[in-house]
Amino acid sequence: MSVPEKFTGFQVNGPETWTEFHKNEFQPKPFGDYDVDIKIECCGVCGSDVHTISGGWGEQKFPLAVGHEIVGTALRVGPKVTLIKPGQRVGVGAQSYSCLDCRQCKNDNETYCRKQLDTYGAVWPETGIVSQGGYSSHVRTHEHWVFPIPDALPSTIAAPMLCAGLTAYSPLVRNGCGPGKKVGIVGLGGIGHLGLLFAKALGATTYVISRTHSKEADALQMGADGFLATSDPNWNAEHIMTFDLIINTANSFEGFDVDAYLSLLDVHGKWVSVGLPEDEGIRVRNQTFLKNGCFFGSSHLGSRKETLEMLQLAADKGVRTWVEEVKINESNLANVMKKMKGSGGRYRFCLTGYEEAFGA
Amino acid sequence: MSVPEKFTGFQVNGPETWTEFHKNEFQPKPFGDYDVDIKIECCGVCGSDVHTISGGWGEQKFPLAVGHEIVGTALRVGPKVTLIKPGQRVGVGAQSYSCLDCRQCKNDNETYCRKQLDTYGAVWPETGIVSQGGYSSHVRTHEHWVFPIPDALPSTIAAPMLCAGLTAYSPLVRNGCGPGKKVGIVGLGGIGHLGLLFAKALGATTYVISRTHSKEADALQMGADGFLATSDPNWNAEHIMTFDLIINTANSFEGFDVDAYLSLLDVHGKWVSVGLPEDEGIRVRNQTFLKNGCFFGSSHLGSRKETLEMLQLAADKGVRTWVEEVKINESNLANVMKKMKGSGGRYRFCLTGYEEAFGA
Repeated sequence: MSVPEKFTGFQVNGPETWTEFHKNEFQPKPFGDYDVDIKIECCGVCGSDVHTISGGWGEQKFPLAVGHEIVGTALRVGPKVTLIKPGQRVGVGAQSYSCLDCRQCKNDNETYCRKQLDTYGAVWPETGIVSQGGYSSHVRTHEHWVFPIPDALPSTIAAPMLCAGLTAYSPLVRNGCGPGKKVGIVGLGGIGHLGLLFAKALGATTYVISRTHSKEADALQMGADGFLATSDPNWNAEHIMTFDLIINTANSFEGFDVDAYLSLLDVHGKWVSVGLPEDEGIRVRNQTFLKNGCFFGSSHLGSRKETLEMLQLAADKGVRTWVEEVKINESNLANVMKKMKGSGGRYRFCLTGYEEAFGA
Repeated sequence: MSVPEKFTGFQVNGPETWTEFHKNEFQPKPFGDYDVDIKIECCGVCGSDVHTISGGWGEQKFPLAVGHEIVGTALRVGPKVTLIKPGQRVGVGAQSYSCLDCRQCKNDNETYCRKQLDTYGAVWPETGIVSQGGYSSHVRTHEHWVFPIPDALPSTIAAPMLCAGLTAYSPLVRNGCGPGKKVGIVGLGGIGHLGLLFAKALGATTYVISRTHSKEADALQMGADGFLATSDPNWNAEHIMTFDLIINTANSFEGFDVDAYLSLLDVHGKWVSVGLPEDEGIRVRNQTFLKNGCFFGSSHLGSRKETLEMLQLAADKGVRTWVEEVKINESNLANVMKKMKGSGGRYRFCLTGYEEAFGA
């Protein structure tokens, strides 16, 4: 299969028309020595996609094709590529560049590289070209950010792991999730359900914490050891100071009683928020963290090393994303975006039918 | 020396008259099997004392003698006491009770015991007696919370270490302060200057971060490796993502640009606030912590083990609190309280002259 000069993607023109997708050709960045050209097979739909095109995260560069949970086939690789071979099934997540030379990059913290670039909406230095995501026919990515997909993982199962999965997996492993630990997952959505599945795969006792009981049956089916609904009276009483780690995947701080949540943590336990709500955040006092000396923070994606380990763990332990497949086209994209803005899917939409949309 | 039936202390009657101290007798809690009766020699003046009596921390039990940086002589010990001998010079800090039986207590986290009681203003269970602090002739304390003072440490040097010192020391050692680490101390007051002295004694490269340069000369004299004044333009630019740990001792979040401070932290670096401002705190978003995946938290005092280690380190390395000694009496207390409400001392007031005030 040859690589076309221009790629084709479903782009949005701006936040006023964020549910209107237009199939346009666009010019990818020049093919570099370390680049891999990938023909896309499917792409997960991330909350970031909606935040970005609907204006929730502020100004963006349009027209823009979003999507950063990409699985496809490597068509060709640059002359210096050693990590990927043509023909391999590979994935691309939410990050597509890091300098590979700074202290962060050399310590498996390349996701915190100060020169990091996002898979879509970033401006490639020198060329000024805006990176375009996976709602497209192809993607061109530096090999460091291209991940071979283990054979045991179907493409639509693997794709959502590349952003949602990694976003949960990295803070789990970096904060000691494993046997003997009690982990909480706040919010059971795209990231949350993968957080639950990976926390269980890593061997931790895992509770889901949600506003209501509506997702309890699903959580238990996914393997949760318990389910706390914050709408219940005294919902936290039995669990105060018992959690080692809580991953907060909630997409909003509306009505959030942060003291009640943080009281769940054991001494010096950690709360890691991985969603990026559009709202103004929450007010905290030092007193908020005092009774257990707990810590509150965020986490950004994860490293290449963690991505490969996560995919292998998923293959070995049979971790399976709960996916709703949707064929990529203008009207389906509009519908899916509206659902994402509402209650979301159960638990991740994955766009398929790329040959139908873009040709074989 | 015999122990009187009643103790005598300088008490405040309420927040409306928080600078009026009255020398009153009060009934201590009944002498228990594990208690130590201490004749007080001196007592540091902590910000907590002022927050408490002036109403900044809400309702309190009055009349109240505050003070929780106490050094004195053990006069008598209960029949089951094994840790302290009569005649020993000993100290008492801000905490005076923990159950010694829960998981926290058994893991050197007794400062996070859910039954913990403060040295002053707490109600002793069963008796209903309100605990009275070190602006008093004597104090009666469970041996676990009574600490022998190494001979090398003068009493007025040691006293402020028992709250201010431990408050800084515990989060330093619990978060890896030592050789090869870069530590920031925000605010150079009572806690801050002890934080600086202990961080240096532990071997870390230590910077003071203050609003202006007014305390720079003192900081350098105390051994600081650098001084950052947030009033300088681009004050943080050269140090972004270089600090492993920052201990925030500031007493207010007024005008606080939390993003600028947190940007100093290396990947997963920690910000630990140990002051307890009266204000409403700050607003944070997940994005605040995202660029370096940093953590934000508080810390409560420290363990008995840490207290003993801290005092020994101070004795071994010649750590010296910068103390202004003030004789305890009604008018001096009023003056010191007003100074504490303002810019504070340089860098800790310590009350002396107890025999003059209370008799030999």
